[in-house]
Amino acid sequence: MGVYAGPVQDLIDELGRLPGVGPKSAQRIAFHLLKVAKEDALRLSHSIAEARDRVAWCQRCFNVSEGDLCGICTDDRRDATVVCVVEEPRDLVAVEKTQEFRGRYHVLQGAISPIEGIGPDQLRVKELLGRLDGEGVTEVILCTNPNIEGEATAMYIGRLVKPLGVRVTRIASGLPVGGDLEYADELTLGRALEGRRDVD
Amino acid sequence: MGVYAGPVQDLIDELGRLPGVGPKSAQRIAFHLLKVAKEDALRLSHSIAEARDRVAWCQRCFNVSEGDLCGICTDDRRDATVVCVVEEPRDLVAVEKTQEFRGRYHVLQGAISPIEGIGPDQLRVKELLGRLDGEGVTEVILCTNPNIEGEATAMYIGRLVKPLGVRVTRIASGLPVGGDLEYADELTLGRALEGRRDVD
Repeated sequence: MGVYAGPVQDLIDELGRLPGVGPKSAQRIAFHLLKVAKEDALRLSHSIAEARDRVAWCQRCFNVSEGDLCGICTDDRRDATVVCVVEEPRDLVAVEKTQEFRGRYHVLQGAISPIEGIGPDQLRVKELLGRLDGEGVTEVILCTNPNIEGEATAMYIGRLVKPLGVRVTRIASGLPVGGDLEYADELTLGRALEGRRDVD
Repeated sequence: MGVYAGPVQDLIDELGRLPGVGPKSAQRIAFHLLKVAKEDALRLSHSIAEARDRVAWCQRCFNVSEGDLCGICTDDRRDATVVCVVEEPRDLVAVEKTQEFRGRYHVLQGAISPIEGIGPDQLRVKELLGRLDGEGVTEVILCTNPNIEGEATAMYIGRLVKPLGVRVTRIASGLPVGGDLEYADELTLGRALEGRRDVD
């Protein structure tokens, strides 16, 4: 462009690399950062550096962690025999918020996606298999996203884990609570029918 | 929340303060920054600090600038007698892109907005009036946004500048080029009718 002074353009370029931030948003955020109190802008700059400095991956479950093991892996009250497999740390947080799960997690750090060139080797699958024996795991809950990549990943892991004599389950697909049958897409409604349960 | 390790939550909080970044986006961006190569994340951190360090406001027109005066104010080929008044530096860039304007600018750094508690005193209005005499300005083009705040600001400045014997103009409102009459809102179509011009 050349209209902006160098450092402004640099900032816009860097912001534009963030996921979900288009050129217009990048420009808007950049001018916001130039306009707010200097300490507010520097706090963001600092927290990025700080997060990269202090945060690493849990050596067991690959959740974000400040130490070698994350808070969940070091919590003795959690049931070590059930492992919930998720794609990303944010999925782990979503499951935690339900307060329905008291086991441990395994964060794959992605899903199988041939289009993006992500195969099983780029995920933490080997590490999951390594945990099954040592931690006495009896059930693996496949909690990947109900989309093509997530389903493929779940299927792949299921095929690896089942022969080891560990119970493998998959979270249910169906209508969201509070949803409307009329507006459900066919795939979801089909899944809901397929996964019907006996009423007791 | 307490689910994330401290620095991660700090980063999410700081990102969530940016305009147009909601809690979900903040989380997504934070994990992106944790996942990419460390130098990529630090480049963003650095460019924020760098921009705040090196970029200031032009002392004449309040555009962003690395020196006391911005590139446009120091360009002798620009016509100093016409001043285009805009709200933000990004509006200046939008006008520059048209390549229709060869005068100078004045960036108000906002618009009058009673709801947000922004009055004329928070804007660079006084500085604009100060420029009129010294620079031999003969026309002020009010190029604020065609919304309530922008119109109010334009009207306010118009009332101050006109008595000084300077020509005051307002950019035209009307149908966007390539637009469709059928889908235009009534206000815009009304303005387009009101601002109709003789066909020559």
